[in-house]
Amino acid sequence: MRLSRYFLPVLKETPAEAQIVSHRLMLRAGMIKQSASGIYSWLPLGFKVLRKIENIVHEEQIRAGHIPFQMPTLQSADLWRESGRYDDYGEEMLRMKDRHGRDLLFTPTAEELVTDIFRSHVSSYKDLPLTLYQIQWKFRDEIRPRFGVMRGREFYMKDGYNFDLTKEDALHAYNRHLVSYLRTYERMGLQAIPMRADSGPIGGDDTHEFLVLAETGESEVFYDSVITDLKFGDRDIDYDSHEQCQAVMEEFTGRYARTDETHDEAAFEAQVPQERRRTARGIEVGQIFYFGTKYSEPMGATVQGHDGKPVPVHMGSHGIGVSRLLGAIIEASHDDKGIIWPEGVTPFHCGIVNLKQGDEEADAACDALYQSLRALGLEPLYDDRKERAGGKFATMDLIGLPWRITVGPRGLKNGVVELTCRQTGESEELPPEQAVAKVAQIYAEM
Amino acid sequence: MRLSRYFLPVLKETPAEAQIVSHRLMLRAGMIKQSASGIYSWLPLGFKVLRKIENIVHEEQIRAGHIPFQMPTLQSADLWRESGRYDDYGEEMLRMKDRHGRDLLFTPTAEELVTDIFRSHVSSYKDLPLTLYQIQWKFRDEIRPRFGVMRGREFYMKDGYNFDLTKEDALHAYNRHLVSYLRTYERMGLQAIPMRADSGPIGGDDTHEFLVLAETGESEVFYDSVITDLKFGDRDIDYDSHEQCQAVMEEFTGRYARTDETHDEAAFEAQVPQERRRTARGIEVGQIFYFGTKYSEPMGATVQGHDGKPVPVHMGSHGIGVSRLLGAIIEASHDDKGIIWPEGVTPFHCGIVNLKQGDEEADAACDALYQSLRALGLEPLYDDRKERAGGKFATMDLIGLPWRITVGPRGLKNGVVELTCRQTGESEELPPEQAVAKVAQIYAEM
Repeated sequence: MRLSRYFLPVLKETPAEAQIVSHRLMLRAGMIKQSASGIYSWLPLGFKVLRKIENIVHEEQIRAGHIPFQMPTLQSADLWRESGRYDDYGEEMLRMKDRHGRDLLFTPTAEELVTDIFRSHVSSYKDLPLTLYQIQWKFRDEIRPRFGVMRGREFYMKDGYNFDLTKEDALHAYNRHLVSYLRTYERMGLQAIPMRADSGPIGGDDTHEFLVLAETGESEVFYDSVITDLKFGDRDIDYDSHEQCQAVMEEFTGRYARTDETHDEAAFEAQVPQERRRTARGIEVGQIFYFGTKYSEPMGATVQGHDGKPVPVHMGSHGIGVSRLLGAIIEASHDDKGIIWPEGVTPFHCGIVNLKQGDEEADAACDALYQSLRALGLEPLYDDRKERAGGKFATMDLIGLPWRITVGPRGLKNGVVELTCRQTGESEELPPEQAVAKVAQIYAEM
Repeated sequence: MRLSRYFLPVLKETPAEAQIVSHRLMLRAGMIKQSASGIYSWLPLGFKVLRKIENIVHEEQIRAGHIPFQMPTLQSADLWRESGRYDDYGEEMLRMKDRHGRDLLFTPTAEELVTDIFRSHVSSYKDLPLTLYQIQWKFRDEIRPRFGVMRGREFYMKDGYNFDLTKEDALHAYNRHLVSYLRTYERMGLQAIPMRADSGPIGGDDTHEFLVLAETGESEVFYDSVITDLKFGDRDIDYDSHEQCQAVMEEFTGRYARTDETHDEAAFEAQVPQERRRTARGIEVGQIFYFGTKYSEPMGATVQGHDGKPVPVHMGSHGIGVSRLLGAIIEASHDDKGIIWPEGVTPFHCGIVNLKQGDEEADAACDALYQSLRALGLEPLYDDRKERAGGKFATMDLIGLPWRITVGPRGLKNGVVELTCRQTGESEELPPEQAVAKVAQIYAEM
């Protein structure tokens, strides 16, 4: 993309309403614009990152054998009356009436609707196991929306639902989700720690939240410091193997790690040596639940078991806060100048800064770089505006592309351009084709 | 995908509520499930086609230089009061109050919101031209939803908005959209004819609807038969060229073609020789509008012109009914046995039917075909269930994959499998590797 043809409305001033760094940077980098309290438009740069995150979530869910589908944003109130949650859910649920006076609601979560789909179409244990998931806009009418997309009202979420014949199978689905989530977050450059949590209005006994450590997190967390040394890495997991998934689950949840909701100081002191006890703040970016037959029993979601008798299915649900992840990633990865995108989610792979737009040689060198990067399947953002170099650098630093190639007449005389790493700030001078090759190699190795 | 691990709830019986063939076939093929009047869940097969269509729309919009972003599904009523449309829009607009009693609405279209984004961030003619688009869920509270996704209440739509300094530039944007839409529909295997139409609540003078001819279309259409001979094909258009876009516009709209809203019988008879006059029914799958300063003037969306004085921008909006397209494609492409997907949008590239599941040789041959197709970047659907051959064929015909490879012990003895075209019903016997090569070549040539 050439910046002269893009829509990147960066702000020079820090918006007064933004209390945390990710909110400030998303506004300043022209990624979002609030249209109503807690409701945002995703401007092109923000939308691009949102799609990258969405694609990683899709790829990892499909890898785990989960099946994508899509439920509507609006639901009839009837199913929620059947489960008993319509009255329980309270003011966070946005309710409305259609022109015929029928009660609708904007989906905050979809256990009822997916259970209805299941009971309408599945009748035999032979069709199990089954895990369906979607990525869809949800709404929760937060009383005080704040922190930008971190606690908005309209948000983009992955929600998945497993249906299994037995508790054991459902717990395997739970473990499988845990594994797929570890992979998902690591691909985004995040360390998200599974912590024992409270199930809230979803219900059930077994639940873990995934938390990214950050000073601005809404939850206080307590954990054994050895946990932060764990890496999932590029292990080759067979998602059908109960043993392999169970082993990962035990490795990543075997140490003390809890949110304030479930924290037990006595257990913390008994299980963790003092020098490894950590208290910090965390941002919740996902949660997995096993809740057995909580929805299948009242809603009659049964299958014929091996003996021919009807059995209510064992279920769980599993969420990733897709839009919230942008905020979490920025909270975890920024500096005074702006955002520092991890390579896995960066909106553009590489920036190109032309120090002397209009100079024939500099323009030609930039065009050639731009074409070379594109020919290798990379997406560069070329700042081809007639602006001062300082302004161009400030914009590139603000929007946080991991790599920048700077092109100027002086370097070109020596046959070199400058390749700069956003994370370290380090630069090196290279012939243009070597700069391209280096950037391509970095992304190929991911 | 192996069918034993997929969720494809095909129905044996024709659902009584479905009045038109696309609705019947989408229900029978397990693509959608109604969750409330005019509100559908997209089951895995339906969602897969929806994503394919969405991707084609994205690719063609980006090719035309339009910039993707995303607006929320809910908007504050305030902007609609500013434009004067809040009261005008009537009962089709779904309105609600949040917990603080503030008026919200579910977006039926977004001229106001995008104009607000524009006026907040763009102030100079140097930032023009600009075209932003999104693909997002919309809601219109149809009084009598019917025909499945063809006239649902919650629907998926691409809506784009151009901002230009002059009327001439805005008309070029109009033409550019027309060209990109012609390409878009042809890639989906559809002939969509631009017809002069009525602008309705969007406003403006210039508007064309794109109609797919089908007996079940909601609009009566009148056209010169030579129009149906026009093909856009794989022309290499420079979307920046006013002349090239204008020429395509003239070629495709120069003949009489109107919907009942704008039909003029006298003009029809004067302009079209009797033997070329056609009356038919059409399904609307898109619409483009030029409406000048209808929104920019009342909302103060101005830029500094070349002379430094503020000028209200010239705008248009441009929509494609993404979810409705599934219905339109099926209306245009089906037979008694089921759907016939055009190759551009098929959910899976090729079906594999194992005539004797459990037979060692047949299973191995199917596995090898499955792996070979996947290795070539194709997505096969392998029916690996223990079902009778007749049932497997009926399912494949119903869900409409364009190509099917049938594998049985008898053929394997002679070293062949059967490759069948869904469209023509023709089959040929080939060695498995040649069948794979032929399917791969068909998709490579698209």
